[in-house]
Amino acid sequence: MKQSHLFTKTRKEAPADEVSKNAQLLIRAGFIHKEMAGVYSFLPLGLRVIENIEAIIREEMDAIGGEELIMTALQRKELWEKTDRWNDKNVDVWFKSKLKNDTDIGFGWSHEEPITDMMRDYVSSFRDLPIYVYQFQTKLRNELRAKSGIMRGREFIMKDMYSYSLDEKSHQDFYDRAIKAYMNVFKRVGIGADTFITFASGGAFTQFSHEFQTITDGGEDSIYINRENNIAVNEEVFNEETLEKIGNDVIGNDHRKFKKEDFDKVTTAEVGNIFNIGTKKCEQLGLFYTDSEGKKIPVWLGSYGIGITRLMGVIVEKFSDKDGIVWPECIAPFQVHLIGLLDKEGKVKVAAEALYEKLTKNVEVLYDDRDVRAGEKFADSDLMGIPVRVIVSEKNIAEGVFEIKYRQGGKSGEVKKVSEVDLFKMLEK
Amino acid sequence: MKQSHLFTKTRKEAPADEVSKNAQLLIRAGFIHKEMAGVYSFLPLGLRVIENIEAIIREEMDAIGGEELIMTALQRKELWEKTDRWNDKNVDVWFKSKLKNDTDIGFGWSHEEPITDMMRDYVSSFRDLPIYVYQFQTKLRNELRAKSGIMRGREFIMKDMYSYSLDEKSHQDFYDRAIKAYMNVFKRVGIGADTFITFASGGAFTQFSHEFQTITDGGEDSIYINRENNIAVNEEVFNEETLEKIGNDVIGNDHRKFKKEDFDKVTTAEVGNIFNIGTKKCEQLGLFYTDSEGKKIPVWLGSYGIGITRLMGVIVEKFSDKDGIVWPECIAPFQVHLIGLLDKEGKVKVAAEALYEKLTKNVEVLYDDRDVRAGEKFADSDLMGIPVRVIVSEKNIAEGVFEIKYRQGGKSGEVKKVSEVDLFKMLEK
Repeated sequence: MKQSHLFTKTRKEAPADEVSKNAQLLIRAGFIHKEMAGVYSFLPLGLRVIENIEAIIREEMDAIGGEELIMTALQRKELWEKTDRWNDKNVDVWFKSKLKNDTDIGFGWSHEEPITDMMRDYVSSFRDLPIYVYQFQTKLRNELRAKSGIMRGREFIMKDMYSYSLDEKSHQDFYDRAIKAYMNVFKRVGIGADTFITFASGGAFTQFSHEFQTITDGGEDSIYINRENNIAVNEEVFNEETLEKIGNDVIGNDHRKFKKEDFDKVTTAEVGNIFNIGTKKCEQLGLFYTDSEGKKIPVWLGSYGIGITRLMGVIVEKFSDKDGIVWPECIAPFQVHLIGLLDKEGKVKVAAEALYEKLTKNVEVLYDDRDVRAGEKFADSDLMGIPVRVIVSEKNIAEGVFEIKYRQGGKSGEVKKVSEVDLFKMLEK
Repeated sequence: MKQSHLFTKTRKEAPADEVSKNAQLLIRAGFIHKEMAGVYSFLPLGLRVIENIEAIIREEMDAIGGEELIMTALQRKELWEKTDRWNDKNVDVWFKSKLKNDTDIGFGWSHEEPITDMMRDYVSSFRDLPIYVYQFQTKLRNELRAKSGIMRGREFIMKDMYSYSLDEKSHQDFYDRAIKAYMNVFKRVGIGADTFITFASGGAFTQFSHEFQTITDGGEDSIYINRENNIAVNEEVFNEETLEKIGNDVIGNDHRKFKKEDFDKVTTAEVGNIFNIGTKKCEQLGLFYTDSEGKKIPVWLGSYGIGITRLMGVIVEKFSDKDGIVWPECIAPFQVHLIGLLDKEGKVKVAAEALYEKLTKNVEVLYDDRDVRAGEKFADSDLMGIPVRVIVSEKNIAEGVFEIKYRQGGKSGEVKKVSEVDLFKMLEK
């Protein structure tokens, strides 16, 4: 894409009321626009990042047998009353409204209920299971406070997956596969080493739910980690009882006795959350199957969430410096930022356009064809954070080279002069 | 995809309260699920159709310079008050709710206001224009009645585009290009010949807005068409005054005097709608640019919508028969429905799987690998409406052929026996 075609512009300052680093940088770089606290639009550059993240997650969810669908925002009161989650005392993030005929409706903040209810149309026999479905869906949550930018929104995109299994064993098997798939996602987007599967409260069926927590100063959570045994516990359940349970159950026959001192406290952001729901919700909603002996059995349910926009926010919090964002290559809006430092005679324009045509056949390129100063182009490029910068200038043309500079990694900042042949070699995967 | 992996099943009957043909067929074939009146989830097959329609529209919008983004559902009251569209008397489809701190919020039913407001961050000089942006976004509209299936929903996906232009001429030029792009879309999805650009009421700036109306018995509108001059007028403005205006303005120097008898009445569904808004809304919202002489000028706005789910509904209304849906090839969830009529020895399974592996390299294939009767497979296939059916059976294997049958067009219903080489030739574009 030519940068002159992009309607967004970078800006020196974020809005005064924007306190989070992720939203400040994303607004300044033209990736998002703030509609109100916790509510952001995604502009062309931001939408590209979202789609790249979604593509990675889609691959991992398909690999464990997921089928993609899309549920609705509008929710029926009767359905959520069956599981006692309509009441504002039990769920404090509902947005609610009314149809013209005065029927109460809610706006979806999660989708266990409608998906489970729908499955009654498709599940009757044991032959119909298992079923794993997922969606990328815009959730609406009436959060009391929203000051972490796109990390905690009142409106945000979430990948939520739901597993429907025959029995506890097959349920637990899938749950474990989902954990691996989640860790694959976090590895692929570059935060694997700093992301911990964390014991947290909640879970209707089991004592704990599992959170995926990523170390970042921009996070809202505190967890305690034991790196040696790769164990992490959320602050809210970090007590003697939990440690004893973990020592008995998780380490296996070792029955190790953990002490609080074995753990370090770190600030984190939750990037994923999975719930081992058991059979209770399916019993409440009437989702049963008939087994081979004709007996009616409730279905086992698991629920698995990754906040897409939240994940994008965490990545920006972690991968940024004083000059701007430093996108991991696989989710960057473009792989190459081609910068033409225009001359009066128009030689650079010709050379840069020729290179642009060639490059776009292999990689996604943003070509800065604007008639502005070199310093402004470089500052904008640093702020936008595209991994590889290729510079075409009068001087480079005279020398028969291109300049290449990486935004990230060990080679970050270093400028190299390379031939066109070498440039294409360096950009090859 | 293997059909055994698909969690949806076909059903003989649609829900009793579902009166529209499009929703009846789509529910029976497992493409959608009804959450409540006018509110439908899109299941794996349905989502594939949506994505195919979106891909075609994306190409056409990009071709006229559109940039894709995604705005939010949550809307600020103050913004819509500026254009007097918050009031329920002026806009009767708002869903509204409140933040925890009692602030009123609405749920987006259209996005002229927030996009125009946002553009104030990006437009200051004449050099910043034109800008054309579009999105595929879930709209929420509190419709009094919703009984046309996915053709008129309370929640639906819409492609909405907004053009910001310097002056009337460049605005009108883009408006005309958008009309052509829209007609390209309707041609590509197979309804071009039955779709008319129709004079309708509305338009803040001009006397008329333009609707794209498609002839179908399932429609809610009536229009009057003059095929000879390719002119169509919505019933609501079909009067002497309109005909005179069209005679003067549209036919050119001819100043032809149309009579009511020159038009035929047909039942149609609106598949697109465009508004020539002029400068009023930008004046109300404060979107101005500075021209080359330093003068402050309001921006020209156009608004262009296609209901994605509505378009899908219209296509089902038009392209279906007593046995089920007949998808146009370019938006079908799969191009080929491979059906294995399993034998006891397992020969068919081997042959069908081998063919499946080969076919999926070139086309999207749904492979019916289920262990059910041939009659059930054929009935399901007819209902689901995939364009080409390829049958592998014991008899075919013995003869060294495959059977191929088209769901649509002149060859519809005819079964041909072909060699593997010929099969691949026939499936080539």
